Amino acid sequence: MSKTNIYWENSLIKRQQREQLNRHKSVMLWFTGLSGSGKSTLAHAVEERLHHLGLRTFVLDGDNIRHGLCQDLGFSDQDRKENIRRIAEISKLMLEAGVITLAAFISPFRAERQFARNLVNPEDFIEIFCRCDITVCENRDVKGLYEQARQGKIANFTGISSPYEEPINPELILNTGQWSLDECVEKIIDVLRTRGFFLPIVDA
Amino acid sequence: MSKTNIYWENSLIKRQQREQLNRHKSVMLWFTGLSGSGKSTLAHAVEERLHHLGLRTFVLDGDNIRHGLCQDLGFSDQDRKENIRRIAEISKLMLEAGVITLAAFISPFRAERQFARNLVNPEDFIEIFCRCDITVCENRDVKGLYEQARQGKIANFTGISSPYEEPINPELILNTGQWSLDECVEKIIDVLRTRGFFLPIVDA
Repeated sequence: MSKTNIYWENSLIKRQQREQLNRHKSVMLWFTGLSGSGKSTLAHAVEERLHHLGLRTFVLDGDNIRHGLCQDLGFSDQDRKENIRRIAEISKLMLEAGVITLAAFISPFRAERQFARNLVNPEDFIEIFCRCDITVCENRDVKGLYEQARQGKIANFTGISSPYEEPINPELILNTGQWSLDECVEKIIDVLRTRGFFLPIVDA
Repeated sequence: MSKTNIYWENSLIKRQQREQLNRHKSVMLWFTGLSGSGKSTLAHAVEERLHHLGLRTFVLDGDNIRHGLCQDLGFSDQDRKENIRRIAEISKLMLEAGVITLAAFISPFRAERQFARNLVNPEDFIEIFCRCDITVCENRDVKGLYEQARQGKIANFTGISSPYEEPINPELILNTGQWSLDECVEKIIDVLRTRGFFLPIVDA
């Protein structure tokens, strides 16, 4: 037996070092709102803008979560809670990895959004309420989900057969039913700008 | 109702664009081996090296997974399977995010490692077998786990009361019980170098 590596020690690259390498901070943008309120589209549009500004980004939404990590979960209250718990935990890891993480999920329950918020530092979490009247969402009904919910083919559908708890004090409220996509993107960029997000990081 | 954003369209930043922004590719390094074989320490040492070379990295290991995303799971075969499934799914997301992801888990079952491998493209997955005799691992016993397992205080302990299925055809076998940490790091860097990992990415 060789003793050469008995004393192997853990080195640890920390978030701050990754942010310095990237020359920008990481943050968690949490988009909440009804189905059809534009959360995912908005998150992708913000990502595109940030990417072209040279920032590292990633969007978590139903497309890459429900078919992957959370494919074992349904839409009962219990499963929705677990769904958001996992998403919050991944978002935290992405944040640690130095990535600006945009999570776009209905996330209808206050308690679960609060759980996500509590996982990270206060300045790391920006809750964005995509406020859109349900009649607008239902009129769009891009995926035909509202129609199926009205027909009783989908159970526990937020706004129809399951509650949506509006954020009480989100960092940002966007009237996604009335404003253009560009306007909404701009509001988010403004918040990041106000927080000094686009200032270069200088080496410690 | 305004119609301004009925036609909101999804923009999509893809992995390749993130890799071009980073000026390096992403990849998944999967470290497997017995408890005490040095997986996590090695992963962190590789991360440190890559970080100082200017690459984006993140280590997933027991420290940030078992207390977070997988805190609801125990060590039964069923839970271990689910544990690795989730880790594989997160690793895939990190890979998409342009991050070199180093996953360091005993991951004792071939089927689960194969699951992780199958989630991504063949060139994205590098399985690193940290080969270390159980007597060496047990002699180190940094966390005192082997002693507790021998006393029957920990059930389903890999190598004692639960099997470890050695990789049949891993990309790399490292004798972590005999070689120094630096030697092992160097072997991994060599594999990445051979794969052209340190060549600059040119714009398409």
